[in-house]
Amino acid sequence: MTHTIAAYAAPSPKAPLEPTTVPRRELGEHDILIDIKFAGICHSDIHQVNAEWGVGTFPMVPGHEIAGVVAEVGSSVTRYAVGDRVGVGCFVDSCRECANCRAGLEQYCTGEPGTVMTYNSFGRDGNPTYGGYAEQIVVDENYALRIPDGIPLDTAAPLLCAGITVYSPLTRWGAGPGKKVAVVGLGGLGHMAVKIAHAMGAEVTVLSQSLRKKDDGLRLGADDYAATSDPATFERFANTFDLIVNTVSAELDMGAYLGLLSTGGTMVQVGLPERPAELPLAALIHGRRSLAGSLIGGIPETQEMLDFCAAHGIGAEIEVIPAERINEAYSRVLASDVRYRFVIDTATI
Amino acid sequence: MTHTIAAYAAPSPKAPLEPTTVPRRELGEHDILIDIKFAGICHSDIHQVNAEWGVGTFPMVPGHEIAGVVAEVGSSVTRYAVGDRVGVGCFVDSCRECANCRAGLEQYCTGEPGTVMTYNSFGRDGNPTYGGYAEQIVVDENYALRIPDGIPLDTAAPLLCAGITVYSPLTRWGAGPGKKVAVVGLGGLGHMAVKIAHAMGAEVTVLSQSLRKKDDGLRLGADDYAATSDPATFERFANTFDLIVNTVSAELDMGAYLGLLSTGGTMVQVGLPERPAELPLAALIHGRRSLAGSLIGGIPETQEMLDFCAAHGIGAEIEVIPAERINEAYSRVLASDVRYRFVIDTATI
Repeated sequence: MTHTIAAYAAPSPKAPLEPTTVPRRELGEHDILIDIKFAGICHSDIHQVNAEWGVGTFPMVPGHEIAGVVAEVGSSVTRYAVGDRVGVGCFVDSCRECANCRAGLEQYCTGEPGTVMTYNSFGRDGNPTYGGYAEQIVVDENYALRIPDGIPLDTAAPLLCAGITVYSPLTRWGAGPGKKVAVVGLGGLGHMAVKIAHAMGAEVTVLSQSLRKKDDGLRLGADDYAATSDPATFERFANTFDLIVNTVSAELDMGAYLGLLSTGGTMVQVGLPERPAELPLAALIHGRRSLAGSLIGGIPETQEMLDFCAAHGIGAEIEVIPAERINEAYSRVLASDVRYRFVIDTATI
Repeated sequence: MTHTIAAYAAPSPKAPLEPTTVPRRELGEHDILIDIKFAGICHSDIHQVNAEWGVGTFPMVPGHEIAGVVAEVGSSVTRYAVGDRVGVGCFVDSCRECANCRAGLEQYCTGEPGTVMTYNSFGRDGNPTYGGYAEQIVVDENYALRIPDGIPLDTAAPLLCAGITVYSPLTRWGAGPGKKVAVVGLGGLGHMAVKIAHAMGAEVTVLSQSLRKKDDGLRLGADDYAATSDPATFERFANTFDLIVNTVSAELDMGAYLGLLSTGGTMVQVGLPERPAELPLAALIHGRRSLAGSLIGGIPETQEMLDFCAAHGIGAEIEVIPAERINEAYSRVLASDVRYRFVIDTATI
C-alpha cells in the first residue's frame, strides 16, 4: 500500500547521490501528504551519507529541513488543510506516551520506538524512513509544523533543523536583553544563532576562526566579532559571556572557551565532535560554570520558533540549487564554502 | 605589629606536620580575634601540604574549617561581640568591589587581590595566611560566620567547607521535594550532601563504589544506595536523576554517570580531579544535560547554610582527635578510613 515518488539518494555509504524512486506509505487517517518545495542541506546529511554516525540504511534519502504545501489530508486530520504551508524537521514520530513526549520534548523520547528520525531510521511500520530530497513526504499531522505566511518557503526550510537547534538553547538559557551571548562558528547553525539571539535582544558576539566573514556577521546582527585564531580574543573576553552557543563540531580547547563565561555562565554544545572532549573541570568549578548539550527541539518549541522568526522577519541566508548539484554542494559544505545554507529546489528532482 | 601563637605546620612540602609558632596580625579596626576551638581536616589540606595544587608557601598551617569563640574585637566591629560563637571557612578576604563580591560570591572574586584563602595564600598586607590548625586567628568581621547555638562547635567546623561546598549546588540546582538527587561518594563532602539534600526534601540516592557504608548512608538520610562497581546500577538508574552531586576527585566514566541524569538534568562537580576529564559530548546533547562545577560558597550563602543546618539539627559526623594525631589522620583520610571527618581539638595544640 505505497506509492512511488522521485528522490535523490545515496545508494551506498559514501557514494554520490543520484536520482531514484522510493516508496511513500498511503495516507493514514492522521497523515498528511506534503508536496515538498524546498529541502535544506544539513551537515548531518553528509555525516550520515558517509556512515560516520553508524552504519546507516541505504539507499539513503537525506533531508530533514523540509518546506512544502499540503497536497492531501487523511480522514481524521484536523490541524491542516490542503494548501497549507508546512514544514517537517528532524523527526516524524515518537512514542507519544513517555514523560518527554507528553512534555513536547519528542526529540528526547525515552519510550518505544523512540524518536523516529525523518530519514535513516525506521517507522512504526518497520519500514525505513526517507527524507526531504524528494518530491513528496507523508507524515503524521502531529509531527508537521505550520510555516507562517511571513516566511518564504525556501528561507524557511533551514529553520526546521538549523533554526530550532539554536533557538532551543537560546530560549532555555535565557538569551535576551542584558545578556551577553557568544556564538562560536558562523556557519549554517551559527548564522541562525546570530539572527535569533539578536532578535531576542541579547548582545551578540561571533567567535570565528578568522575575520573572513566579519562583515556578514555584523550585518546579520552581531554586535562584535572576534577571531579565535588570535590569542588576545581569549584575554579580551575572559569572564564575559552569560551564554556561549558552540555550533562547531571540530575539537576545541574547552578550557579556553569556558574561561570566556562569566560566573554562572553556560556553554551549550549543539555540534557533535567525533571524539570525546578533553575537559579541565577546574574551568567549571572556578566560576560555577556549566557545559550543556542541546538537541534540536520538540514540536511545540519548533512551532514557537517558526512563529518567532516570522514575527521578526527571520529566515536563513541561502543558496538555492537544483538537485543535480547536491554532490557539488556537499563538497562545498565540507570546505565551508556556503553562505550559509544550501537549499534544494525540489521541483528539479 | 604581630603576636605569636601556637600552631601545627608542615615545614616543607610533603613533610609531616609538627608543632610551631606563627604570627597573627594585631587587630585592625574591623578585625576580630577568634579563639579557635575546633578545626576540621579537609582532603584539600593534604593536597596542599603535598604541593599537589602548585608549589605552596611553607611553613604551611592548614585548616579552613574553623569553629571558635570571639576573644577580642576591633574598634569598629559591629557584627560580633566577645563570646560569640563564630566560624571561618575557606577564605578571609576578597576585593569587595567586583560584581561577584558585591553579589556575595566572594569565592569567585575577579578583582585584586582576588579571593584571599584562609591559608597558603597572601593577604592584603603581603604576608602569608595561616589556617586553623592553631590557637587563634584574626579575621575581618565580614569574613566570619555566626555559628547558631543549635550546632555544637565540633560538628559545626566541617560545615565551613564540606557543608557549604555541597549546600551551594544543592540550592542552586533546586534540590527539594519531588527532586531526585544522587550523591556520588560518601566521604566528608558526600555525607554532608546526603544530610542536607534529605533535609531539603529531595529523594536521595548514594552512588558509592561498594555497599560497605550502606547502613550509614541510609541512616544519614539516603532513600537508596547503590554500588557503582556493579554495572547494573547504571542500567537501573538510567535517565533518573535531576541532579547528581559528584564529590569524588577520582576520574570517573563521565558518559556513564551523565547517562543517569534525566532530561535537562545537571551533574555538578565539586571535587577536582588531577587530570582533565574525558567527556563524550553526546551524553550532554542527547538529553539536554549539563555538567557544572561549583566552588564552596560565598559569605551570605555560608551563613544561610549554617542557619539551615541549625534549623534541621545537622552537623558533620566527626572523629575528634588531638593535634598530635594529625599525621596519622592524614594517612587515614587517604585510606578513606574516616567516618566522616576528622576534627582537631585545638586545645591540644
